[in-house]
Amino acid sequence: MKKTANKPAKPRNALYAQSGGVSAVINASAAGVIETARKYPRQIGKVYAGRHGIVGALEEDLIDTSRESRATIRGLRYTPAGAFGSARYKLKGIDKNRAEYERLIEVFKAHDIGYFFYNGGNDSMDTAHKLSQIGESLGYPITCVGVPKTVDNDLPFTDCCPGFGSVAKYVAISTLEASLDVASMARTSTKVFVMEVMGRHAGWIAAAGGLAGRNASEPPHIILFPEIPFEQEKFLARVKQCVTDFGYCVIVVSEGTATADGKFLADAGTLDAFGHTQLGGVGPVIANMVKQAHGYKYHWAVADYLQRAARHIASKVDVEQAYAMGKAAVELAVQGRNSVMPTVVRKSSRPYKWTVGSVPLAKVANVEKKMPRDYITADGFGITSKCRLYLSPLIGGGDPPPYKDGLPAYVRIKGVSVKKKLPPFKA
Amino acid sequence: MKKTANKPAKPRNALYAQSGGVSAVINASAAGVIETARKYPRQIGKVYAGRHGIVGALEEDLIDTSRESRATIRGLRYTPAGAFGSARYKLKGIDKNRAEYERLIEVFKAHDIGYFFYNGGNDSMDTAHKLSQIGESLGYPITCVGVPKTVDNDLPFTDCCPGFGSVAKYVAISTLEASLDVASMARTSTKVFVMEVMGRHAGWIAAAGGLAGRNASEPPHIILFPEIPFEQEKFLARVKQCVTDFGYCVIVVSEGTATADGKFLADAGTLDAFGHTQLGGVGPVIANMVKQAHGYKYHWAVADYLQRAARHIASKVDVEQAYAMGKAAVELAVQGRNSVMPTVVRKSSRPYKWTVGSVPLAKVANVEKKMPRDYITADGFGITSKCRLYLSPLIGGGDPPPYKDGLPAYVRIKGVSVKKKLPPFKA
Repeated sequence: MKKTANKPAKPRNALYAQSGGVSAVINASAAGVIETARKYPRQIGKVYAGRHGIVGALEEDLIDTSRESRATIRGLRYTPAGAFGSARYKLKGIDKNRAEYERLIEVFKAHDIGYFFYNGGNDSMDTAHKLSQIGESLGYPITCVGVPKTVDNDLPFTDCCPGFGSVAKYVAISTLEASLDVASMARTSTKVFVMEVMGRHAGWIAAAGGLAGRNASEPPHIILFPEIPFEQEKFLARVKQCVTDFGYCVIVVSEGTATADGKFLADAGTLDAFGHTQLGGVGPVIANMVKQAHGYKYHWAVADYLQRAARHIASKVDVEQAYAMGKAAVELAVQGRNSVMPTVVRKSSRPYKWTVGSVPLAKVANVEKKMPRDYITADGFGITSKCRLYLSPLIGGGDPPPYKDGLPAYVRIKGVSVKKKLPPFKA
Repeated sequence: MKKTANKPAKPRNALYAQSGGVSAVINASAAGVIETARKYPRQIGKVYAGRHGIVGALEEDLIDTSRESRATIRGLRYTPAGAFGSARYKLKGIDKNRAEYERLIEVFKAHDIGYFFYNGGNDSMDTAHKLSQIGESLGYPITCVGVPKTVDNDLPFTDCCPGFGSVAKYVAISTLEASLDVASMARTSTKVFVMEVMGRHAGWIAAAGGLAGRNASEPPHIILFPEIPFEQEKFLARVKQCVTDFGYCVIVVSEGTATADGKFLADAGTLDAFGHTQLGGVGPVIANMVKQAHGYKYHWAVADYLQRAARHIASKVDVEQAYAMGKAAVELAVQGRNSVMPTVVRKSSRPYKWTVGSVPLAKVANVEKKMPRDYITADGFGITSKCRLYLSPLIGGGDPPPYKDGLPAYVRIKGVSVKKKLPPFKA
């Protein structure tokens, strides 16, 4: 039988890696990647996952996802955090650290990896973009496709970002519930409640707290955004007004709230691996400020990881979009699209309709999408109806995990290692 | 037609009041009281609720629950916090402040209140007991029945206390989810995660965090209980061992954790209305301690009111018991039982079976039930299988509220006031 020119190329393996802070739905994207890749056996061989993301890729510490059962991969859809391990590890520029990029290409060659799916935020899209370039220049072309992930919702070109909808839902519900608590007690006890949420430079998560109230008289009464320079006197006056008018005051504060000179209210003084300031503790700072000015009894909460890991209350829309982004990434790759990232495209808000688009990684890399000014009320303390219209669909619906003995029955991977073929390399 | 001696007495009104810190299910007890009272029209007339609990009772600020729709009262079953308002307001001893007790009896007389249902913890049971005594001595006998409520689970004579099961479920799930997050990131980022939970003198809530792991290698690796004096060196050595063995360390710390001399690790120095020290912030204290000793990157969370208001993830068992306690309180009252509190009686743990008992208020008043020593492991850092067997059924099942636009559709009362008949009184 004659071999034709149309005979499909031999399938090549794929590498999937999770990057940066994890979310309630990043594993749903992983499930989308793995389940979809299994549908293209002529193009994609095995899907390997970097153990702890890019660190595993550099150290040739790869997990063979083909050794995981279908039930486990399906279960990733309802399991929070990074099942394969994530990493805060930013590759430097190619000129500064060419060795790391070359090592990655070596690992790709050794394991016949033709596709790289990088599931992360701005930094990661930059890395994936650079990898696609250097692969080309080293004569080992690799199809690099980003899978968007960030609870901060600060990726550009996509209407929203998987991970955000669930943290938004968590923050909105927690604000609603805590506000009912404070309202119950305010007559004789706590007058001011401060809830600190994530969001280093963008106030999307803090804004979601605003969904708890339907109008200005309902809590939260004050939201502090990173986009709005903090003015202490104006803030303290508003707190007093709220306690006078409503008997209590609920404040949602973004960890990235800063004064006009750019100084974070809660600067712990330490830097993370990306050189960013490690934040935390603006909640108590704000609460103490109120106590000293007005003497009100206060309470404060810092949800920290709880907010981004809260798969039990994930948004159905978010889970679906996370899965769809993983699925679309694979579909783009097998269509030969390189150095792109799938996006969520909003068709309408009411009723909510969305579809999948894509954008070149070069455009996304290292760009942060902040809150538009017209999403924040003129006084800087609340969200506008335009913002509400944007946010509300993203927290729609529930997709609860299965439970056993009163706890979510999250899955754990076996994590079987791929046999190493290269000399060691220390990331 | 001849009037018989058996003609039922004229029905008398009831007063229901919420007291102390609220919970995810205290309104379910309210629903139990109100719905059950409506089934005994020959004994009970209207159910009034104190606006902000005993403060409303003193100020004759009463809410007429008969003006609330059946749907609203039913909705209280799935609405967290205190719908009628609660209060941190402790009546002093009768000898010290007879005027307040006499005022209450005056209000009761003015509104023909024959039944008093007080929904609270140890302090409130003491108040209800004293009221039943003074009513007697003033010639206005009043049937006082307690309805147990405390997230701290520190009421004696009842197997558990409504409010606790739901906070336990929240803490167990949050610990599980945050631990998955930390495990994902530990290779290059956070090594130590500290979660602060409520529990001033009793470690029940902290213990519930232990349900997140099935054995000593699974997080949480360390639980700090108020019952176990904190030893810094022993603690820091254990943290280091965990990071060495597992790559990370998850710590659940009770707000009431103290050293052997009784000093709270996080003593804010302020007192609440009951003269108790206001706590908060032991999480960051512990995290900083670890950072200084070992240099590990840390994160910490303080769930604060979120944990006790989290009706979205309430335990079904807890909701049922909260309702049952309200219902039983009314049944005890119409049976003529005075100065008692219904209790949860455990029949078996596996399968979980419970029934309703009762105990005289005199026995309950001001007694705190702490964790038995054999519920805590020998090293003081974990829970035993005996503790697990006790806790596990209490977080069983879910009872999610209805949702609208992605948020729980909690009910709000109209809160129509009862017309005042007495001169003002300032609580």
